[in-house]
Amino acid sequence: MAVNLQIPAQSDIHAVKGVDIGIAAAGIRKVDHPDLTVFKLAPNTAVAGVFTTNRFRAAPVQVCEVHLSSDHDTQALVINTGNANAATGDTGMEHARRTCSEAAELLDLRPSQVLPFSTGVILEPLPIEKIVASLPAAVNDLRPDNWFAAAHSIMTTDTQPKIYSTQLPLGNTTTTITGISKGAGMIKPNMATMLGFLATDAGVAPELLKEMTRSIANASFNRISVDGDTSTNDSFIIMATGQNGVQIDSVASPHYATLFASLKAAALDLAQKIVRDGEGATKFITIQVDEATSRAEALKVAYAVAQSPLIKTAFFASDPNLGRILCAIGYAGIKDLDISKVRLWLGDVLVATKGGRNPDYQEADGQRVMQAEEITVRIGLGRGHDTETVYTCDFSHEYVSINADYRS
Amino acid sequence: MAVNLQIPAQSDIHAVKGVDIGIAAAGIRKVDHPDLTVFKLAPNTAVAGVFTTNRFRAAPVQVCEVHLSSDHDTQALVINTGNANAATGDTGMEHARRTCSEAAELLDLRPSQVLPFSTGVILEPLPIEKIVASLPAAVNDLRPDNWFAAAHSIMTTDTQPKIYSTQLPLGNTTTTITGISKGAGMIKPNMATMLGFLATDAGVAPELLKEMTRSIANASFNRISVDGDTSTNDSFIIMATGQNGVQIDSVASPHYATLFASLKAAALDLAQKIVRDGEGATKFITIQVDEATSRAEALKVAYAVAQSPLIKTAFFASDPNLGRILCAIGYAGIKDLDISKVRLWLGDVLVATKGGRNPDYQEADGQRVMQAEEITVRIGLGRGHDTETVYTCDFSHEYVSINADYRS
Repeated sequence: MAVNLQIPAQSDIHAVKGVDIGIAAAGIRKVDHPDLTVFKLAPNTAVAGVFTTNRFRAAPVQVCEVHLSSDHDTQALVINTGNANAATGDTGMEHARRTCSEAAELLDLRPSQVLPFSTGVILEPLPIEKIVASLPAAVNDLRPDNWFAAAHSIMTTDTQPKIYSTQLPLGNTTTTITGISKGAGMIKPNMATMLGFLATDAGVAPELLKEMTRSIANASFNRISVDGDTSTNDSFIIMATGQNGVQIDSVASPHYATLFASLKAAALDLAQKIVRDGEGATKFITIQVDEATSRAEALKVAYAVAQSPLIKTAFFASDPNLGRILCAIGYAGIKDLDISKVRLWLGDVLVATKGGRNPDYQEADGQRVMQAEEITVRIGLGRGHDTETVYTCDFSHEYVSINADYRS
Repeated sequence: MAVNLQIPAQSDIHAVKGVDIGIAAAGIRKVDHPDLTVFKLAPNTAVAGVFTTNRFRAAPVQVCEVHLSSDHDTQALVINTGNANAATGDTGMEHARRTCSEAAELLDLRPSQVLPFSTGVILEPLPIEKIVASLPAAVNDLRPDNWFAAAHSIMTTDTQPKIYSTQLPLGNTTTTITGISKGAGMIKPNMATMLGFLATDAGVAPELLKEMTRSIANASFNRISVDGDTSTNDSFIIMATGQNGVQIDSVASPHYATLFASLKAAALDLAQKIVRDGEGATKFITIQVDEATSRAEALKVAYAVAQSPLIKTAFFASDPNLGRILCAIGYAGIKDLDISKVRLWLGDVLVATKGGRNPDYQEADGQRVMQAEEITVRIGLGRGHDTETVYTCDFSHEYVSINADYRS
């Protein structure tokens, strides 16, 4: 059901020097289903993360934030699916900490060198004993070429694994960037039940990596919406192992711009894959808002359009019911919006201008664009020079089925 | 499909002295389908209205606002379904004005004494000639006992007519309150493709009626959500004809409180009927948020819950997947929310407390509440003393079908 989601061939996935991955089936929710993933990182890997803004952020997110701010370098990640360990109170915090301490013992690390991640059902106790019992199997499985298996083992309602890998020349050596992501519902800006892990064998100064991660998240994982729900567990991590000899210490470093652009492209691909595999998605929709007085204003309009169930069902039906888009622009919250200056394009077709339908617009043209699997909606607000783009999908019967049946 | 929507018997609908209603089939969208409704009001009827906040508010809404602020008393309403006359630019404004001037000519009024209302598809030109051609038939049909027919003739995707009627003793006489509403999708606070018309034969000073209408709208039509989309055309009108001898000039008048409460109850019933008939609705859900520091804060949380597709699909499935509700509370935008103080009840069942699941909670109890057709979600934020309530429905396959097929 996923929309044009490219799964690279196993042979196109490049291992990242300094990253080993191990998988196990802990039986957290389903039996004999890989659901526990361990990343082992070379010492002195720089690791930075961006997390959900939800006030009910899950226990593992809270522990991640504490551990990332500790004095010791992060050398392991533990990721479980099947249970989000969210809204689980003090017990949930104990479980997240125990996950780290057990992994640390197996890997001879401090607990604060381990980051925990969980995704799945909220409000149910994490079956910690199952995780503890399966950690040794995951650790025994550690190896560099497990990226593909990891992309599978972090899936929940995803129908496809999400993986990206590239290599680029940087100075005298080759730099590898490989990453995985998961998420299909509860997806909206400021992260979602969305996990993204991106690794490179280039080295980046830790403080710089933090800034890069924030900026990259805002151009990728924070610009997607499936259903407007911001999850409790969203996490996006970049790991720079520094094992290939390239070291980037500041934005003035010779290879900074190239690496930044390449990491951003990787993150955008992984984020868009989440939308392409959005629950029940049949279309991939890009909403671009131009001529705003600020990026915040452009985003407000883009999300009003991206999150309207009425618009999303019209996309599902390939129905150019474009008045619904104007309606959403109108309620997006720009109080002094002059609608006579608003223009709306569907693909390359100018649909609305001067507060009404473009006199030259033909429904057949709108229909042609709507038939495609990938559709761009472009809105000119006629107010300023700022622009923002968000990515979303349509709203189908399948979305209702998936979410009505998720726990059963 | 509507959830417990009571349709009164024809004999329980009381005409309102000073209000005549006429209906015609203008063929705006469907042939031989009543789609044009005219209200004729006695001279000196007080009329007040509340309209959509959408910036793309439709031409008729703009004309209503101008006409209501004119010096002449409103003596007629003209309502068409099948076309919203929204996002129709200058031509749309001409059409709305022409509707008024044609009706005024037939009724011997000034154009500014006529209010126009439209509901239906956005971005398509209003077939004004069809309306003009059928206005005489509607005017010829004017009579006091046409309320039931009017409730039918203003329907769009509604499956049931929405009508309310009551009589109460006020002083030495009987006061009648009768009203109709329509709307089933694009329904969210600050009005929706929602029309509500409420009439009483009591008299109310025009300025006082304005205040009452605003206050009543905020307790009824502005507290409902079907899909979170605020339409371009929403309008709520109260008409007080003053034909029964009761006259209320200030909040200190002896019958003010009774009339206000009765009008509010009528508006709440008509608004809730819209939710009960929400597109594809199988459940009627009340979201009550208590212990907020302000009503605005309580509303923010209530709407985050009421508009989450994940929560609405879980209600459709009768699945007590209550973590999704906590998740929505968490992303509602209260930055300093202390989740350890939040409590969540489903019906009478305490589900969550202290940031996690209530230790005494049994899934069977949640399941029992979820099976019902009417469900109350109560949230205690543990922050203050303000409270707000909103009404919504679940999200079903049928919603997708209706909105994917609406124009075809």
